[in-house]
Amino acid sequence: MNSSSTLQKYSFPPLEKDLAPKIQTKIDQKTKPLGALGELEKIALQIALIQNSLSPELKNPVLYLFAADHGITDEKVSAYPKEVTWQMVQNFLTGGACSNVFSNFHGFSMKVVDAGVDHEWEMQNPNLIVKKIANGTANFNKTNAMTMEQALLCLETGYEIIRTQTTDSQNVIAFGEMGIGNTSSASLIHHCISGIPLDELVGKGTGLDREGRERKQEVLKSSLKRGGTPTDPLEILSQYGGFEIAMMAGAFLAVGKTGKTILVDGFIATAAFAIANLIEPNLKDFCIFSHESEEVGHKKILAHYQVTPILRLGMRLGEGTGALAAYSILQLSVKFLNEMASFGEAKVSEKET
Amino acid sequence: MNSSSTLQKYSFPPLEKDLAPKIQTKIDQKTKPLGALGELEKIALQIALIQNSLSPELKNPVLYLFAADHGITDEKVSAYPKEVTWQMVQNFLTGGACSNVFSNFHGFSMKVVDAGVDHEWEMQNPNLIVKKIANGTANFNKTNAMTMEQALLCLETGYEIIRTQTTDSQNVIAFGEMGIGNTSSASLIHHCISGIPLDELVGKGTGLDREGRERKQEVLKSSLKRGGTPTDPLEILSQYGGFEIAMMAGAFLAVGKTGKTILVDGFIATAAFAIANLIEPNLKDFCIFSHESEEVGHKKILAHYQVTPILRLGMRLGEGTGALAAYSILQLSVKFLNEMASFGEAKVSEKET
Repeated sequence: MNSSSTLQKYSFPPLEKDLAPKIQTKIDQKTKPLGALGELEKIALQIALIQNSLSPELKNPVLYLFAADHGITDEKVSAYPKEVTWQMVQNFLTGGACSNVFSNFHGFSMKVVDAGVDHEWEMQNPNLIVKKIANGTANFNKTNAMTMEQALLCLETGYEIIRTQTTDSQNVIAFGEMGIGNTSSASLIHHCISGIPLDELVGKGTGLDREGRERKQEVLKSSLKRGGTPTDPLEILSQYGGFEIAMMAGAFLAVGKTGKTILVDGFIATAAFAIANLIEPNLKDFCIFSHESEEVGHKKILAHYQVTPILRLGMRLGEGTGALAAYSILQLSVKFLNEMASFGEAKVSEKET
Repeated sequence: MNSSSTLQKYSFPPLEKDLAPKIQTKIDQKTKPLGALGELEKIALQIALIQNSLSPELKNPVLYLFAADHGITDEKVSAYPKEVTWQMVQNFLTGGACSNVFSNFHGFSMKVVDAGVDHEWEMQNPNLIVKKIANGTANFNKTNAMTMEQALLCLETGYEIIRTQTTDSQNVIAFGEMGIGNTSSASLIHHCISGIPLDELVGKGTGLDREGRERKQEVLKSSLKRGGTPTDPLEILSQYGGFEIAMMAGAFLAVGKTGKTILVDGFIATAAFAIANLIEPNLKDFCIFSHESEEVGHKKILAHYQVTPILRLGMRLGEGTGALAAYSILQLSVKFLNEMASFGEAKVSEKET
């Protein structure tokens, strides 16, 4: 399989920036010292550019949660048993999880995508999209996590989910995940793409103790010895991917192509971003990085992409909670741009020269 | 005037912490890895303790903005002309400022206290509380900013405003300020109380250039030479205070006494906190520090008090905007505590031992 031609369909043009000077002028004329709203001014500029509007609006935000199981859990790399993946998916569907509470609070609708959870669903639920590739990946300490064909199918499926399920009126798309073992997959993906030493990217996940983390590090080193350091996105996914990460990467590309605002969650969602961004580097301009996770390595990965996270609150829950927690900062950024008075309107004196 | 006996009325007992183990157990039983919500868990615990409830609620939040002018502006320590103080107060009252936009968004009511603005108001406005001590402080590079009696009157006035204007149903009180020149006052107050070298506490304020900041540093060094480094709260206020800072300090103490949640804004609000906390060190337990301002020195001051700010977004606008921007994190903290399912309720497996 030749990735470069296969992946051609996922390409899209860079963010159009012609309106930037006018947006900046509007920001600078607001009754506040120049630059005094810090990151909120940058977020306002970015969202206005994405919407190509001096008066952007955030409408009908939606959270897509991609879930899957991971064969690497056979190596005891997580503090929680594998069953928690499907149990938490059920929790999302019955409304008891943190991402439900935060979604409700901020008016997000939620779609849960089963990309490869090792469980058969008895219930039907309008918010559950079953697109199982298999009942979990293979143990990548022993063999490839998935085939190249499965990796491509994940991208394609994630892309199609967004293309078919997202309405024109939804202009903010947040991504989160659930999958016991998926920090292991994310660490290896980040290592392959960023070149940051693996040791610096392997953390406690859901809460390993020191000994558990050392075991995880040994397992991932051994996996890396087996699978090497591929540079091709499909090959990285094939070696170390998770179905939810790969499918989310396809979803990222679909949102980028439609030119909407993407809200990226934590360490694992950033691994899906990393894959998607390797396929189409114009993606980054459409992404807002919601928070710096407590998971070790996320800070370095964010620095690698030269992006500033909105929140740094020591969160490490996943399931889109960082993206949801940061959403009000996006709302305030848009609000100040649309609603604050200018110096002229309020008859306030400007800076002395 | 003997401060210690004069200030006796502002004392109050420490935060009652008997409920802490039960609250922590409730947090730990939620369907998430232990500690995975990071700072949100600490905020939930603090608010639950303040309300002495396992199911705390945030009700009818209110923002008090204290405004005053500063004689030190004669020394050209600010990038904006002094008139901006009253012009911005007018902007608050007509709804065009950032703090209006953010207040409206988060459902805050707003009260603006004229503690000493150099302007006579033509309009009447139900949200304007005129408690002018004088039309601005004296230039503290030449003489005391205010008398000891004025300092005490400020504390008393701020205290009474809260006591008489805050209703029982309002259980979150945010504090912000407006006053061209007031970073100069705040820097000296912080220096006297924290002992951090003055140079490390003098920043760009509303946006001085390098040369302007150097001039400001020289002026404040010269002021310090004149006024010394008092340790008594009333004497610090008398030497370097602003009327808005001193009045806000009294307001802090009144809220602490009623045992409600206090949301502290940036560098200047933290200076009012510092004064109030010097008078009654039990205050800190009731305070949530909303953000780390871009104003140099705020980071060090927050570290001095061993508190973690919610947001670090490079904001330096004042007028309560940091407190307002952080409010949704308080809301989410309370929401997860009240609304998330426990492991038992959701039938999710717990951590493996």
